[in-house]
Amino acid sequence: MNTRDTLVTDLNVLADFKPRVPESYQGAEFLMLGNLMPSLQISVISQLRERPKLIVLDTMNFWMETAMKDLASVLTMIDVLLINDSEARQLSGEFGLVKAARKILTMGPRFLIIKKGEHGALLFYNEHVFVAPALPLEEVFDPTGAGDTFAGGFIGHLARTGDISFDNMKTAIIVGSAMASFCVEKFGPQRLKEITREEVDDRLRQFVQLVNFDIDLK
Amino acid sequence: MNTRDTLVTDLNVLADFKPRVPESYQGAEFLMLGNLMPSLQISVISQLRERPKLIVLDTMNFWMETAMKDLASVLTMIDVLLINDSEARQLSGEFGLVKAARKILTMGPRFLIIKKGEHGALLFYNEHVFVAPALPLEEVFDPTGAGDTFAGGFIGHLARTGDISFDNMKTAIIVGSAMASFCVEKFGPQRLKEITREEVDDRLRQFVQLVNFDIDLK
Repeated sequence: MNTRDTLVTDLNVLADFKPRVPESYQGAEFLMLGNLMPSLQISVISQLRERPKLIVLDTMNFWMETAMKDLASVLTMIDVLLINDSEARQLSGEFGLVKAARKILTMGPRFLIIKKGEHGALLFYNEHVFVAPALPLEEVFDPTGAGDTFAGGFIGHLARTGDISFDNMKTAIIVGSAMASFCVEKFGPQRLKEITREEVDDRLRQFVQLVNFDIDLK
Repeated sequence: MNTRDTLVTDLNVLADFKPRVPESYQGAEFLMLGNLMPSLQISVISQLRERPKLIVLDTMNFWMETAMKDLASVLTMIDVLLINDSEARQLSGEFGLVKAARKILTMGPRFLIIKKGEHGALLFYNEHVFVAPALPLEEVFDPTGAGDTFAGGFIGHLARTGDISFDNMKTAIIVGSAMASFCVEKFGPQRLKEITREEVDDRLRQFVQLVNFDIDLK
């Protein structure tokens, strides 16, 4: 848990934070639930009169330790769970990520994304798995916000295309990874505020190159 | 250093092992130098009257600590260096793998492969980098020999195709990774002895699927 997460946690717990979904948000097709107390995430889902087309949830080890009952509930209400490798191990009680994923997919979400930092990310869906690379970086200036930027790029691509198929989720993970690779280049959100669409496309081309190989198979 | 490596090391040092290259091996186009004492690797290169088209070298932390001078020499004689992430950090004195790779590529090899176990492998060449996935496995029965199997699959593909371009090295890494994924499924070389060409092709198709994504770019 980094400083920012601790702060968010403290604010949630101490400030009696009760988010109210604005009327203008009713009917939203895509819901990204950031890393908050699971009971608050449930409250947000409950406030939406129409079930969104896709609900993505971020969570963390802290809630597994302090609010597992609520977390288990919210897991049954969502479509995509977004966690890191150590959280996947903790949530499942399995060390191997394939076994961990298999177990977590029985807890509610249909899709599971396991983030592995500099080692990229894995997307699990039924018996399918997709391995997304991270861009090998010369320097990480400030990793703060990389996870949230990944989540934003991911659901942003899905919302823009309106396509929630497994194939498009793969692309969305690449978009999220590309956005996160910008985030860490400068302090806070600075780099994200200055990038152009052209720079994003260039970065996406780098991702294509990164994993591209040809093989002759009968 | 695992038990097998320790054994190899002990044998090298204690048995006054002096490999003699058989006359029938003269003119070999591809040379794979396994993880032996660097002075022995130099001796093998020196015994070949014609310089092979491609020399690949495996080494380890133990030689960096005990025979760095010879290791530095042999690095200037080879084309491809094959090491794991912690060895790359140790050899370069850099923690970040991109910086480590940049430094190692000034020490002799034109190509550097950094193996990251379950996180796959990286191939560096000039300013290019290729990220190869590892197959996410439900179970690793016995990891012994996975590194050597990777090396064998890698140089085997290059030797079979005769093409030592960067593009074909990417494919060779995928072939090496696929072979290594078989190796760990059973004890010792057992699984490698029973697999068919068809099973290898199926596994290669899995690797294609693993990283395959579509993205629309102008």
